[in-house]
Amino acid sequence: MEEIFTDEYFMKRALQEAEVAFEKGEVPVGAVIVINNRIIARAHNLTELLNDVTAHAEMQAITAAADFLGGKYLKKCTLFVTLEPCQMCGGALYWSQIDRIVYGAKDESRGCEAMGTKLHPKTTVTGGVLAEECSQLVKRFFIEKRNLN
Amino acid sequence: MEEIFTDEYFMKRALQEAEVAFEKGEVPVGAVIVINNRIIARAHNLTELLNDVTAHAEMQAITAAADFLGGKYLKKCTLFVTLEPCQMCGGALYWSQIDRIVYGAKDESRGCEAMGTKLHPKTTVTGGVLAEECSQLVKRFFIEKRNLN
Repeated sequence: MEEIFTDEYFMKRALQEAEVAFEKGEVPVGAVIVINNRIIARAHNLTELLNDVTAHAEMQAITAAADFLGGKYLKKCTLFVTLEPCQMCGGALYWSQIDRIVYGAKDESRGCEAMGTKLHPKTTVTGGVLAEECSQLVKRFFIEKRNLN
Repeated sequence: MEEIFTDEYFMKRALQEAEVAFEKGEVPVGAVIVINNRIIARAHNLTELLNDVTAHAEMQAITAAADFLGGKYLKKCTLFVTLEPCQMCGGALYWSQIDRIVYGAKDESRGCEAMGTKLHPKTTVTGGVLAEECSQLVKRFFIEKRNLN
């Protein structure tokens, strides 16, 4: 039987969140957190709407997943996020002891790897899942934004 | 005339917040954000109460200060925090473009410097203000916690 719950499957759900952010005029980044193939948190970037630099998709998803689980650690969870996490989100993921991080497009300038952010030793990372779709959405956002200004 | 609004003055306010955290059974870290010698945000660590690794004093203070100012950047602000910020909080402060960070005790293992976190190039940092008081409060917390268990 074909596997339904692939990394691509959940990244598509994160992309749907990113598209909601796009429609709201936010940098289009989306995230879902999954445990046992079940989505327990969905979020998208809301930094503009909330006037809050901390309102990245990942941060909201971490808070929502912990709330769902009733505990602050996300040890058996996987985060799917359309763009590689930044220092802030990487730092939050470090504290959460999340099991796995799967990201779409790499952030060559502000991503965890470029910035030298330390993740928890128990956390594994997979990058590049649906990278082209994730990246194109962000590029399209900035092209449209430039054309409006 | 003697200067009232010294770094020590505001660090004492951050320490008061840390003491509130202590009373609640939280790792005692407190923070205030100041603009033009006026405190516009006060917060203390609430990770246990909220079951949320993102609920560090600094994160809440950043959100509250941006809310007060009506914009997400804290360019003319100073953060006073009793313990050196971690990667997550350093990453959030990076995005906020805060003018200045003043911390009390150094976090030799999880602080920004030890972890190699990049702050915004416009941000200046002063460490060690009332370091002994700030550090003692955290030490006392962990001693009492050990004795209870």
